[in-house]
Amino acid sequence: MAVNLPLPVAAELLPVAGLELGHAEAGVRKANRKDLLVLTLAPGASVAGVFTANRFCAAPVQLCKEHLAQGAPIRALVINTGNANAGTGEPGLAAARATCAALAELLGCEARQVLPFSTGVILEPLPVERIVAGLPQALANRAADNWLNAAESIMTTDTQPKAASRTVQIGGKTVTLTGMSKGAGMIRPNMATMLGFVATDAAVAPALLQRLLKDAADASFNCITVDGDTSTNDSFMLIATGASGVAVEADTPEYAALAEAVTALSRQLAQMIVRDGEGATKFITVAVEGGRDHEECRKIAYAIGHSPLVKTAFYASDPNLGRILAAIGYAGIDDLDVGQLDLYLDDVLVASGGGRHPDYQEADGQRVMRQAEITVRVVLRRGAATATVWTCDLSHDYVSINADYRS
Amino acid sequence: MAVNLPLPVAAELLPVAGLELGHAEAGVRKANRKDLLVLTLAPGASVAGVFTANRFCAAPVQLCKEHLAQGAPIRALVINTGNANAGTGEPGLAAARATCAALAELLGCEARQVLPFSTGVILEPLPVERIVAGLPQALANRAADNWLNAAESIMTTDTQPKAASRTVQIGGKTVTLTGMSKGAGMIRPNMATMLGFVATDAAVAPALLQRLLKDAADASFNCITVDGDTSTNDSFMLIATGASGVAVEADTPEYAALAEAVTALSRQLAQMIVRDGEGATKFITVAVEGGRDHEECRKIAYAIGHSPLVKTAFYASDPNLGRILAAIGYAGIDDLDVGQLDLYLDDVLVASGGGRHPDYQEADGQRVMRQAEITVRVVLRRGAATATVWTCDLSHDYVSINADYRS
Repeated sequence: MAVNLPLPVAAELLPVAGLELGHAEAGVRKANRKDLLVLTLAPGASVAGVFTANRFCAAPVQLCKEHLAQGAPIRALVINTGNANAGTGEPGLAAARATCAALAELLGCEARQVLPFSTGVILEPLPVERIVAGLPQALANRAADNWLNAAESIMTTDTQPKAASRTVQIGGKTVTLTGMSKGAGMIRPNMATMLGFVATDAAVAPALLQRLLKDAADASFNCITVDGDTSTNDSFMLIATGASGVAVEADTPEYAALAEAVTALSRQLAQMIVRDGEGATKFITVAVEGGRDHEECRKIAYAIGHSPLVKTAFYASDPNLGRILAAIGYAGIDDLDVGQLDLYLDDVLVASGGGRHPDYQEADGQRVMRQAEITVRVVLRRGAATATVWTCDLSHDYVSINADYRS
Repeated sequence: MAVNLPLPVAAELLPVAGLELGHAEAGVRKANRKDLLVLTLAPGASVAGVFTANRFCAAPVQLCKEHLAQGAPIRALVINTGNANAGTGEPGLAAARATCAALAELLGCEARQVLPFSTGVILEPLPVERIVAGLPQALANRAADNWLNAAESIMTTDTQPKAASRTVQIGGKTVTLTGMSKGAGMIRPNMATMLGFVATDAAVAPALLQRLLKDAADASFNCITVDGDTSTNDSFMLIATGASGVAVEADTPEYAALAEAVTALSRQLAQMIVRDGEGATKFITVAVEGGRDHEECRKIAYAIGHSPLVKTAFYASDPNLGRILAAIGYAGIDDLDVGQLDLYLDDVLVASGGGRHPDYQEADGQRVMRQAEITVRVVLRRGAATATVWTCDLSHDYVSINADYRS
C-alpha cells in the first residue's frame, strides 16, 4: 500500500566504517520476529540526538537525554520494537536503565555510554528480561553490512523497511552516509520522528554534530505528518564515526557539503515514513509560499495537511477543493486576506480572488487528483517566506489499522 | 447511525409566538428535497448572532454581520442547503444580496432587514435564481408549528433532523424556547456551529441578547468537535420575539432563568450534532479538571477529542489508553507534570503517577469502552479550572461519507 516506495536492496545499503549492527528475535511482544537491534560504535564516534516534545516522553527518551548530557563517549545504541516503554512511570525508567546496564556489561563499558530506544504499544510494562536475554544473540551477529536486517528490526505498523545510502566527496575523499527510519502512524514529529538514525564516517565534533542534526531535522522529519499525533518516543539520531578520516569543521565548504548530504538523506527517510503512512494511497506535498514569515506558512501547511476532510477528498480523488480553502481559513492567521491568495493543484490554478478561478475546469482538478503524487501550492502574496509539509491521504485502511492494532 | 438521538416529534416542538417558518423544494442541488427555509419575525423581535472565525467566511456570513451591524429590525431569515456560497468571491456576495433583496420585496421590508444563511458544498456558484424562485412557495406554507419541516430543510450530511423545545417559568409566566441545529462534519466550531437557531418569546434588548448568546455558545456549540475542521459558514442565532410579554432585564433573576434555559437548549442542540457526527458510533465526553486555567484544560480536552488515534480506539472499543496519555502530552502545556495527573474512563482509574495505575484491570477498561457513551476524565491536580468537550469516534463510515460526498 506504500506510495512509490521501493523496497531497499541490501547491497545498496553501504556499510559505514566504525559502526556495526546486530539483530535478534527477543519475543518482546510476538515470537519469531526481529524486534531487537544493537548498534555498536568504534571509539572516537560522535552522537547527536533530537527528541519528542511530548510531555509524556518515554523512559528511553529521558535516559537518552541524560546519557548524552553526561558527555561520556557513546559506545552503543539498543532499540526494541513491540513496546514503547512510555506511560510506564518509575518502573519504566528502571527497565530502560537495566537494559543499558546489561548491554554495557557485555561490551565492557559504562551504562551511561549506551543509548536506549523503544517503539510499540504505550502504557504496558517493558518485558526487560526478554530484551536482556536477547542481547547476546544480537551482539553475535553484528556486521557493518547488516542495515537491511536492522531496518526490519525496528518496524511496527510499517509495511516495509526504510533505509537509504549516499556518498559525498569531501576534500577529495569519499564520505559515506547510511540511515534508516521507522514509523507509519502517530506521526507529527515535533523535534524528530519515531525513529530515525543516520550514520556517517565523517569526523564531526559533538556540538557541531548537534547543530547539523537540528538543521537537518527541521528540514526533514519536522516537516511530515500522517495523523497529527506527536509520538511519545520520537528520536532522530546522527552518528559520526570518523572512520573515513575526513574531519569536518564549522563554517567550511566541507561542512556545507556534509550538511547538504545529511539533510537530503534525512528528507528521503522522512518522506519514506509518509509514503508508508498508515493506509496511505497518495503522497501529498503542501508548499506554502509568499508568507510574511516561516511560522505562518507552516501553520497553513499543517492545517491543510491535518484536515481529515482534505485527506479523505484526496483518498477519493475528488477535487472538493473548497475544503482546502476552509483549512487555510482556520489556520489561525488573523489578518490573512483570502482575496489575495492563489491556490494551485500541481500546475492547475484552482482559486484566486477569494473564489474559484474563472479558467478553472473541474476536469483539470480531477486529472491531478487521480495521481499518486500531488502538490498543493498556496501563494499568499504578502512576503517571501515559505514552508513545505509532506503528508498522505486518510483512507479506510487508516481506520482499520488503528482500530485493529493491539487486538 | 446516530448515538442515542431520538427523532424529534412534531407535536413536541413548541411554536414560539411571533415567529413563523416556511419551507420549499427549490432544487438548489438536488430535486425533490426540502432545501429552502424562511423564518419571518413579527415586529419587535430582537436577533443576535455569533459566526465562524474562519478567514474564508462565507458570503452569507459576511452579509449577516453587515446587516446586524446596521441595527435595523430584522424581519426574516432565509436559509438554503445544497450550496454553502463560500469561496465564491464577489459574485457570491452579490448572490447573497440578491436573495435578501428578493425576499425583502415579497415581505415589503428592506434587504438589510433579512439575514441569509447557506450550507453545503464550498467553492461552487450559488444558483440564486432557483432560490429566488422558491421563496413564494416557502412564504405560502409558513406556520408557527412548522419546526420539524424546518429542521429537515437545513440538513446536509445529517442523518436526521435536530430540534428541541423547553419552557421556563419567569415572573409567573411561561416562556417558550424552541431551537434547531444542523451539521455532522466540518465540525469544530469557533464561535458557533454551522447552523444553530434558538427562538424564544421572551423580550430581550439586542445588546443583552448578544451577551446571552455569546455565553450560551461558549458553553455549548463552542465545546464540540467531530473532525476538528472549522466550517466557513458556522452561524448560531438567538431570536427573542417578545410575544410572551415577559421582558427580561440584565442582572436579574429573570435573566438568570432565561440564560439557564437558553444554555441548556443550546447544549442539547450542540450535542445532537455530535451524536449525529459523520460515522459516529460513540458519544464521548472529555472532561478536564484541576487545571490552572480554563485555556489549558480546553487545550488538553481538544487534543484528546481531535486525536485520530484516540478516536479510532473508541471505534474499536479498544482500551488502548496510552493514546490518550500521548494526546495529553502533546497538548502544548509546556510545564505539565505528567507524573501528577490522573486519567479516568468513566469511574475506572486508568493511569496515575505517569503510568498505569496498579489496580487497573484491562477488563474494566474494556467494559467501559464497549458503552455507547463514555466519559474521559483527566484530573490535572494543579488548580481549580475545568473544561468539557463533546466528541465522537472515528469510523470507517466517516471516511466513506467524506470520500463520497459531492460525488
